[in-house]
Amino acid sequence: MASSPAKVVDVHTHMYPPEYVKILESRNTIPLVRSFPGSSDPRLILLSAEVPSLEEASKEQASQDVVVPGRPLTKHYSSLDQKIHFMDTHNIDISVISLANPWLDFLSSDEAGPVATSINNEFSAMCALHPGRLFFFGTLPLTASLNVILSSIAHISQLKYCRGVILGTSGLGSGLDDPALRPIFSAIADANLMVFLHPHYGLPNSVFGPRQEKGEYGHVLPLALGFPMETTIAVTRMFLAGVFDQVRTLKMLLAHSGGTLPFLAGRIESCISHDGHLFASLHGRRTMWEVLREQVYLDAVVYSDVGIKAAVAASGDEGVDRMMFGTDHPFFPPLGTDEDGEWESVGLNAQAVKKALAEGSLESEKVMGGNAVRVLRLFEE
Amino acid sequence: MASSPAKVVDVHTHMYPPEYVKILESRNTIPLVRSFPGSSDPRLILLSAEVPSLEEASKEQASQDVVVPGRPLTKHYSSLDQKIHFMDTHNIDISVISLANPWLDFLSSDEAGPVATSINNEFSAMCALHPGRLFFFGTLPLTASLNVILSSIAHISQLKYCRGVILGTSGLGSGLDDPALRPIFSAIADANLMVFLHPHYGLPNSVFGPRQEKGEYGHVLPLALGFPMETTIAVTRMFLAGVFDQVRTLKMLLAHSGGTLPFLAGRIESCISHDGHLFASLHGRRTMWEVLREQVYLDAVVYSDVGIKAAVAASGDEGVDRMMFGTDHPFFPPLGTDEDGEWESVGLNAQAVKKALAEGSLESEKVMGGNAVRVLRLFEE
Repeated sequence: MASSPAKVVDVHTHMYPPEYVKILESRNTIPLVRSFPGSSDPRLILLSAEVPSLEEASKEQASQDVVVPGRPLTKHYSSLDQKIHFMDTHNIDISVISLANPWLDFLSSDEAGPVATSINNEFSAMCALHPGRLFFFGTLPLTASLNVILSSIAHISQLKYCRGVILGTSGLGSGLDDPALRPIFSAIADANLMVFLHPHYGLPNSVFGPRQEKGEYGHVLPLALGFPMETTIAVTRMFLAGVFDQVRTLKMLLAHSGGTLPFLAGRIESCISHDGHLFASLHGRRTMWEVLREQVYLDAVVYSDVGIKAAVAASGDEGVDRMMFGTDHPFFPPLGTDEDGEWESVGLNAQAVKKALAEGSLESEKVMGGNAVRVLRLFEE
Repeated sequence: MASSPAKVVDVHTHMYPPEYVKILESRNTIPLVRSFPGSSDPRLILLSAEVPSLEEASKEQASQDVVVPGRPLTKHYSSLDQKIHFMDTHNIDISVISLANPWLDFLSSDEAGPVATSINNEFSAMCALHPGRLFFFGTLPLTASLNVILSSIAHISQLKYCRGVILGTSGLGSGLDDPALRPIFSAIADANLMVFLHPHYGLPNSVFGPRQEKGEYGHVLPLALGFPMETTIAVTRMFLAGVFDQVRTLKMLLAHSGGTLPFLAGRIESCISHDGHLFASLHGRRTMWEVLREQVYLDAVVYSDVGIKAAVAASGDEGVDRMMFGTDHPFFPPLGTDEDGEWESVGLNAQAVKKALAEGSLESEKVMGGNAVRVLRLFEE
């Protein structure tokens, strides 16, 4: 009996469904969507690092595309047909779609609950249009009351294609090490939902220096360095606060291969065991290495075989069972070539897996899809 | 003819010579050295993250050691005999000593030049007391005028045991991507001196959240995450500013195995090649990978075999020729055991090299000392 062909699964792939785009269009502060004369698509402005150029661009009437802030909000962000086309182009069998940052973090307490329900139902309906090809991570109304948040978890846990929640690092406003989050993490874990941890806030722009603040370096420093460090800080704070021990069944999938966690786990451990303030209180704790191999999964969005190998090794002897391929679509479109064709950003990550784990090997197949199918139960239940 | 036994070299090992300690004792703002009742050694306070607890500690008369801020300034920081004892205890043949952070960054323009001359002469004299066992990285008076800085480079390039300069990330005040630094980098490269890039400023404490600001997590987050990210940001800014191309002979040894650079180099490259602002202007540039294998060296202070392997792999096919063992002595002393014995922090890094590269292998010997002897010319000239 021939074994079924290995599935390719994309666990890191975002959408802004039409309702969400309407919310962004109605806003005057970041995040927002705004049209500029001379720019064919409306622009999506997500990061405060993009603020300085925003006013300039309006003044200059945006005659040159390079001064228009943000990124073009193409159909790749909100069209389900485009998502399926992208999947077909890149031989992706299954996508686990999620709302892109900054999710519902900016909504008022009153708005958040109803919008979350509506957005989660919208994702659910999209998945139902392509049964077996689409699953999703839901979105929580974190600015609402605890009861509303818990109701939202109960809601998405009943949605047929929901397999987890995408979570930023702000929590209820003061980070993921906030003790007030405990019942939320417990409810997520009890519902057997994965947390997909994703950055948005990066680091304060000042840490990148005056030339960054003048816009000389584009988005490179906030995206390439700020994002991964934000994720690393969030997980380390959860670890130091004991969240992984308190909610032993909590499972987290970390964006961008854990940010920098695989490379820094050793230094984190050494700093703890050499810290007079912490050593005694954390005696007998599990190490970051143990948490990595027991409660953490990493996506494969790290753009190098060096990163893939380190991430797999950091996840223990069975690390190759804990890594899952992703694309970060619709972010990082190819420049100057047809966006309907193959994306270099996807190729970079697929090539990195092949180079690190040998194309066609069992290990490679696990990372490219087998792990996601098993861990996230990507079949009709 | 039997080959000479492989040398063990420590390229990351600091001192505060007595003159420097006197300067710190005279200060009322960080960095400073202060004595507290009930604490046997004076305390060294280097980081602004330690400020909140400073006032509290004074008020409470510091009856419990845990509330005393900073770290004990033991003889390990300023005693040459103690450095030699530490080397003997850990079978280290040669140490390349350097002033510890924050170097001379806080001195006035007038003070910096004379203090640099004096400190560099003090390091030189220490090395002369143990010929062949000690070399050093000099210190630059970066707050002084360009002429004074260039004179200081000329001075240290004449000192028999000087092999480079230790540099923080602040440069002349606005970072290492400041065009005004160009003649300084050129002069350093022309003098065949290595730059040892080392963090000090970390990240703003606010990024670690309210529990860090209350002191709950000790020094872990600033040291384990802030320091490596500071280094990574500094190098990436230099790269984006074209410094490595402008001063093609500049060689840099990066502390803590490059911070997070080996893990993030792929993401940096992808972010550049997908950035509309940067792609055109950087066309034809060398990649970060090329800079890593042509102008960058990494120390082996990363506390895990995962980190060692990633750092070696990121440095190219000959990456094992570009990594150099270090200890970070006198930081991270063992807690609760005799500081005159073996240090766990040293063992963690030595074990990581052995685990990553096989004990006794040629590769392991290169990293443990051979590379440093060759690259830094650690012999009488």
